[in-house]
Amino acid sequence: MNMSETLTTAAKAFGTREASAPLQPLTIERRTPTPRDVEIDILYCGVCHSDLHTARNEWHGTVYPCVPGHEIIGRVISVGAHVDKFKVGDMVGVGCMVDSCQDCEHCKQGLEQYCEAGNIQTYNSPDKHLSIQTFGGYSERVVVDENFVLRIPENLDPAAAAPLLCAGITTYSPLRHWKVGPGKKIGVVGIGGLGHMAIKLAHAMGAHVTVFTTSERKKADALRLGADEVVLSTDIEQMKLSRKLDFVLDAVSADHDINAYLHHVKTDGTLALVGAPEKPLPVAAFSLIPGRKNFAGSMIGGIAETQEMLDFCGEHQITSDVEIINIQEINQAYERMLKGDVKYRFVIDMMSLKDA
Amino acid sequence: MNMSETLTTAAKAFGTREASAPLQPLTIERRTPTPRDVEIDILYCGVCHSDLHTARNEWHGTVYPCVPGHEIIGRVISVGAHVDKFKVGDMVGVGCMVDSCQDCEHCKQGLEQYCEAGNIQTYNSPDKHLSIQTFGGYSERVVVDENFVLRIPENLDPAAAAPLLCAGITTYSPLRHWKVGPGKKIGVVGIGGLGHMAIKLAHAMGAHVTVFTTSERKKADALRLGADEVVLSTDIEQMKLSRKLDFVLDAVSADHDINAYLHHVKTDGTLALVGAPEKPLPVAAFSLIPGRKNFAGSMIGGIAETQEMLDFCGEHQITSDVEIINIQEINQAYERMLKGDVKYRFVIDMMSLKDA
Repeated sequence: MNMSETLTTAAKAFGTREASAPLQPLTIERRTPTPRDVEIDILYCGVCHSDLHTARNEWHGTVYPCVPGHEIIGRVISVGAHVDKFKVGDMVGVGCMVDSCQDCEHCKQGLEQYCEAGNIQTYNSPDKHLSIQTFGGYSERVVVDENFVLRIPENLDPAAAAPLLCAGITTYSPLRHWKVGPGKKIGVVGIGGLGHMAIKLAHAMGAHVTVFTTSERKKADALRLGADEVVLSTDIEQMKLSRKLDFVLDAVSADHDINAYLHHVKTDGTLALVGAPEKPLPVAAFSLIPGRKNFAGSMIGGIAETQEMLDFCGEHQITSDVEIINIQEINQAYERMLKGDVKYRFVIDMMSLKDA
Repeated sequence: MNMSETLTTAAKAFGTREASAPLQPLTIERRTPTPRDVEIDILYCGVCHSDLHTARNEWHGTVYPCVPGHEIIGRVISVGAHVDKFKVGDMVGVGCMVDSCQDCEHCKQGLEQYCEAGNIQTYNSPDKHLSIQTFGGYSERVVVDENFVLRIPENLDPAAAAPLLCAGITTYSPLRHWKVGPGKKIGVVGIGGLGHMAIKLAHAMGAHVTVFTTSERKKADALRLGADEVVLSTDIEQMKLSRKLDFVLDAVSADHDINAYLHHVKTDGTLALVGAPEKPLPVAAFSLIPGRKNFAGSMIGGIAETQEMLDFCGEHQITSDVEIINIQEINQAYERMLKGDVKYRFVIDMMSLKDA
């Protein structure tokens, strides 16, 4: 597979050669570490809905073969000569990005996720070193520029820490950007992989958390995760009176009426979307104008902010609620994820791939 | 018409008794000024699209008879005993609001337009003094609490200053709120009553102004008004490359593709809606997420900010481009407004009502 001059070695992986095929064992090439690279033995990899979207080409633009996975936890097994942030044996993580231009206005501000040249994502992006697409964490090893490798606090369970690399930072970054903290009233829409992290994080930041859910059954769980109040969004009576929230994080990727939640935002407040519904969301002008409200979006977070989030989680003992699976169960896990049948994130024990 | 104990006197006006009828002469009652009131002889009244929407009950909730008009310019003819801000002979203005609770969090911050109890609008709101709806500026006189009366700089042409009371503040307030000024690149969508004011104001604030218009014919006018660049929004080639604007003010009330303009907003930038299209605007999640963009709304401005805007216009010699009509021409003016056939605001010379 090596199309350039860079030396590579073979690595076991799990992925697919076409949109309609189930994931299966593949062999990929990983580059020999450059002087600035960290080589990581992957222990766990979280399963994100983006993995499924990409594997099945639902967002179009998937290049095959495709090896998903961007919630990577592992141990450093080698470092390049100029690497000074990591050493062999460190517990580290890799999230959604493995590189960016590191030179534009946004990269210099630590907003690599908004890199003007376009960041290099962990999978399905053009690899800077090899003339092929990047391959993700459903694999035994990965080689990453040290600037895109994160330290994992040693007090966190590594399997449960894996989803912090995507679900964690995707919710932490907007909560910080829109200044969630003590004295603030915030809302979380949807209790899934992203939403359950948002509840834990917003609670730990000291905010008053109102959770909106379509499911009466999830009420007890929401309270356990840190909600102060739970609103059943299917109950017109409960939805009528505006909660006047400073900030609402909307983590729903299914179609839903955004105006019903903008109603709960106070004057000058913001509702930020982190889930990505397929169809455009109809927004009424009068949901925004009388209250100078903001409807925003947010995408993962920068590398420095991801480290800050991991350190925050270490300090507050926050990890994801996970169900651990073997890589051989990934296709069934995708089907269960589509039905929302997971509390709240699948994490693959990558030992299952090594043993295969 | 006086349903309460408050003393009133009759005043000539122009309005309608039903949604489908043309506007015609009416007699209304104005309260005798209380100790905090200012009585104003109306000289000019601008014609806003809201006047038409309300007269025709297009937003529902119109109470008849309806006397529109909220861009009022006049001379003070009497003041109550406790009025200290104005004296007889002053040139003054009244905009969209004539009262608010003056006690809630927003009123205390000078955001009466977002009053929690709901502000009292200049027309079609429950009058605090009389048990009837408020009547607007298509009338010979108006009586208003001094806290809702504005000083008009004497160097401005009073007829051309009338639209500042709604079109002016509706565009000035978001430009200030989103910190438009030197070094900022901003966009204005649509060149009409609101849009043409936004161009003049943003230019005077020192921003680089890009105007988006569907009409090649309006290009020269946009440049004359202060645009640095004009983009023909119907030309796919011109629309392709993002202008990376810090802020976009969208003053279009017709249906339009909001995603095409969000594309021109830079990371962390905002597009604010001040026009109010009737149907909800479909917003793609990916128009907001990759760039942490904001889609916002804004409604008029507070009283202190309206005074600030008038003073700014006095300092920069800014007024509206107007076409002056007699009140007897109001029905034809509404029809022309519907066709966009006005550059850029009709203003009624209210002497025509007095002489009638």
